[in-house]
Amino acid sequence: MTELAEVEKQELLYRGKAKEMYTTNYPDILWVHYLDQVTALNGKRKVQMADKGKTNCAISTQLFTDLRNQGIENHFIKQIGPTDQLVQRVKIIPLETVIRNSASGSFVKRYQTEYLQEFAQPVIEFFYKNDALDDPFLNDDDALALELATREQISKIRQIALQVNQHLIKIFEKINVQLVDFKLEFGITNTGDVILADELSPDNCRLVDMQTKQSLDKDIFRQGLGDMVPVYEEILQRLLHSEEA
Amino acid sequence: MTELAEVEKQELLYRGKAKEMYTTNYPDILWVHYLDQVTALNGKRKVQMADKGKTNCAISTQLFTDLRNQGIENHFIKQIGPTDQLVQRVKIIPLETVIRNSASGSFVKRYQTEYLQEFAQPVIEFFYKNDALDDPFLNDDDALALELATREQISKIRQIALQVNQHLIKIFEKINVQLVDFKLEFGITNTGDVILADELSPDNCRLVDMQTKQSLDKDIFRQGLGDMVPVYEEILQRLLHSEEA
Repeated sequence: MTELAEVEKQELLYRGKAKEMYTTNYPDILWVHYLDQVTALNGKRKVQMADKGKTNCAISTQLFTDLRNQGIENHFIKQIGPTDQLVQRVKIIPLETVIRNSASGSFVKRYQTEYLQEFAQPVIEFFYKNDALDDPFLNDDDALALELATREQISKIRQIALQVNQHLIKIFEKINVQLVDFKLEFGITNTGDVILADELSPDNCRLVDMQTKQSLDKDIFRQGLGDMVPVYEEILQRLLHSEEA
Repeated sequence: MTELAEVEKQELLYRGKAKEMYTTNYPDILWVHYLDQVTALNGKRKVQMADKGKTNCAISTQLFTDLRNQGIENHFIKQIGPTDQLVQRVKIIPLETVIRNSASGSFVKRYQTEYLQEFAQPVIEFFYKNDALDDPFLNDDDALALELATREQISKIRQIALQVNQHLIKIFEKINVQLVDFKLEFGITNTGDVILADELSPDNCRLVDMQTKQSLDKDIFRQGLGDMVPVYEEILQRLLHSEEA
């Protein structure tokens, strides 16, 4: 990557539930600003939470860097401040890709399985990223019929998702954390490649302490158990120490 | 098939929403009795409807026979009275397989697409056949994680479903009816083969008249538009005349 000393934040492109995206003076580079905000129930519940932005930004930087070191291409370029990143501009594919190693959340709700029941193989589920429709669960044929992605893109997403899963399981295992499930988003580059995008943080992962089975993720907020930033901060510190070890 | 003159109905094995299944004096043969009953909303609404049983039995006999003539194996053995069939005993795979050629029903509800919007390719969806869970929509990975079927069985189901679709589209085209979508069930024989089972009737299909786009199926009942038996009878008569032509 060439030096990007003169990158300037320009227009607000998109305000999401936890991040803002801005254009820059480089057409292929976006400026991501992580917000001190948390939402649940598809945005119906929204709370300000000090230091969440910088914690998620740091965790996401760490994990995107780890994945790149493992050969998994992604949109992350570099962190440029406590709450800000530069990322490659991609066209986001409107499929939220959930990878499950054990049962939790909507899987347990839909099928009444036991919480944390382990799967013989990872389960991949797609959700149509569409707030108006409340992000409905869909299958590959539905995604094709709705023209959300091509068959080749879906196949590529599945392949990358399984690779990411393998690496993240190991990264979290080292810090005594079980990766229950997580959500990824993918984008299409200007050369047509499918790469990993969005963020990687406890907002999008279900993490439990391997011994205590305590939740170390956004479920703390979803279940109304208070401020989750200290727990996110704990995840960050364990990740940083794991790197040093 | 050898002669089955001495088949006797024995124990009630299962009472469904539209049929009863009985064991017979042959361990591999079941006796199906079609009921004059129709349900909607997963059985929450139930109505008695004269002549429905014999109409569905006759349509199902006709379609299973047509499919067998096209080389598609299925559980149907023979009709043994106005409302009764003998079928091969199989272990039903708890996946309701829905094949959609255009948008209707829960697809339109979930994704807010236009009613009868045509798909470039047929869409296959699986639903977990489980009344207590309200037959939830699931994907292949979910079905594997829940151990509802093996990967090979799912692949076989998909393959047979697409073949059935091709043939049913043609059969209904001949009688001026558009096959919008339909539901199939599959079973495993005592030799481990996956074959088509259940019934084939306007209870499980969405059919519309090609010109008027009038519903010719259970949607008449779902939408509270009255007695659907005359319409089912009309489908039967058109199918029988098509055969004669």
